[in-house]
Amino acid sequence: MANPEAVLTDVTGRDGFQMEKEWIPTDRKVEILNGILASGVKRLEATSFVSPKAVPQLKDAKEVLARINRGDAEIIVLVPNLKGAELAREAGADKINFVLSISETHNQKNVRRTVEESLGQLNEITGVFSPERIVLSLGTTFGCPFEGLYPVDKVQAVIEKVADMGLSQITLCDTTGMANPKQVTEFVRTLSARFPEQRFALHLHNTRGMGLANLIAGYQEGIRHFDAALGGIGGCPFAPGASGNVALDDVAHMLELMDVETGADLEGLIGTAGRMQEILGYELPGQVMKAGPAKTVHTV
Amino acid sequence: MANPEAVLTDVTGRDGFQMEKEWIPTDRKVEILNGILASGVKRLEATSFVSPKAVPQLKDAKEVLARINRGDAEIIVLVPNLKGAELAREAGADKINFVLSISETHNQKNVRRTVEESLGQLNEITGVFSPERIVLSLGTTFGCPFEGLYPVDKVQAVIEKVADMGLSQITLCDTTGMANPKQVTEFVRTLSARFPEQRFALHLHNTRGMGLANLIAGYQEGIRHFDAALGGIGGCPFAPGASGNVALDDVAHMLELMDVETGADLEGLIGTAGRMQEILGYELPGQVMKAGPAKTVHTV
Repeated sequence: MANPEAVLTDVTGRDGFQMEKEWIPTDRKVEILNGILASGVKRLEATSFVSPKAVPQLKDAKEVLARINRGDAEIIVLVPNLKGAELAREAGADKINFVLSISETHNQKNVRRTVEESLGQLNEITGVFSPERIVLSLGTTFGCPFEGLYPVDKVQAVIEKVADMGLSQITLCDTTGMANPKQVTEFVRTLSARFPEQRFALHLHNTRGMGLANLIAGYQEGIRHFDAALGGIGGCPFAPGASGNVALDDVAHMLELMDVETGADLEGLIGTAGRMQEILGYELPGQVMKAGPAKTVHTV
Repeated sequence: MANPEAVLTDVTGRDGFQMEKEWIPTDRKVEILNGILASGVKRLEATSFVSPKAVPQLKDAKEVLARINRGDAEIIVLVPNLKGAELAREAGADKINFVLSISETHNQKNVRRTVEESLGQLNEITGVFSPERIVLSLGTTFGCPFEGLYPVDKVQAVIEKVADMGLSQITLCDTTGMANPKQVTEFVRTLSARFPEQRFALHLHNTRGMGLANLIAGYQEGIRHFDAALGGIGGCPFAPGASGNVALDDVAHMLELMDVETGADLEGLIGTAGRMQEILGYELPGQVMKAGPAKTVHTV
């Protein structure tokens, strides 16, 4: 019997592309995202309706959204505020992702607001998207480069304030790759017990090599929703040269080996990752795209 | 209370250096290994007494062994045969590591012997080193690129033949990085139950990104001995560009975050990894040497 399925949300178009300094032509963005969709990934955080001044790479958000082959996939876009939510609605997004950092320092740097002000924005946005169409991403859930590692109480205190909203999902984000498997186990166990009705997801970075170990720790505690970016792009400005998001292709590969159904076609993902590597012009952190699937038998 | 400690065996000098095509001067080898020893690592597989024709990089095995600052560390050397064992004894190795591949195909390619012939060699070698001073490494324990993934029965059948020898340790080696956490859990659980008196260790490669996830899976099943190579060097000729051994620095970092005592000094390891990167002249796969420890707090 197969284990319960896991749902992968590809964040290449948002958390991946937003870190790329060289302009990626809209055609190429659409090509990559369509390759991911064609590989059977059913949830895509495709882009972000943010200020083009803040993130010029994503200024083509509307066009990308209009041109990808959505099929029956669920398309999510990140929005930082009410205006973004309105644009996302006009552009026909299925859901929006609103990010709020547990770290006051990080939240100030990221959106120039206090956590309390961000919570106010979240409430305003429910006038545009109903809560069951809102994903809340808690940035720096496990710790912040400026404040250190966090105890779970700090995160729980923030979730208490939104627990009765009926949000579609709360994503625990290890934004800068600081979490370890023991911490993930503790956080997920505590939060799932305290908020049994709330769906939680994990957004993990491989900055310090622990991405897949943390994913397994979360899976063991019942998490079934995971963010990932093709080829492991993305990353953290404080860790030059280190890996970015957990690689969608590596995650799909590991889960397939473990008989956890994801619906993703590994060959399609590896092919698309190779094409994206050509487009971006540098070696991506993904490992399976280099080594090939473990199940491949070579001739002597 | 701290969790039970884990013992890390550094294999930089053997599984790491043997994959390097450019000659590493003996002085530099000694410098790197002394850096690792000075960082508190208490077990070192320092080199290999193999034919200099087969592995020219390790032709200075005797000199390396004579020059490193052994202190109270346990020094292990790999030997492929009786002659190697005799050289290792003369050179004053504390223990030897004898490798036998579960895969007949891989064993033939690696040492040009059948598995049965290798078992015969192992018996011969006990005339030079007593079994409690012999580590048996089972190459391709989890699968072989030429034969596919293995069921645990195949490995158990080989271990049955050596189970009453009283070997110091049996190391389950994921030689080409094919194992996944579910498989590691199953293998370790089955083999530990079947051979409760035998100490098992894990030798993991990060070829497909699963190295640390596999390590945690083994730790959860009671494994306390792990091989690793500084900076994640080593690797597999079938996976160009992919990662090598799990990185000693990344393993020590993760275990420290999880309150598992290893005795290793992270700063010392990171410093030595940086120095080794200069010597080898290319970017190493290790992540913490790029991103820094998760506990480091940055100023805003």
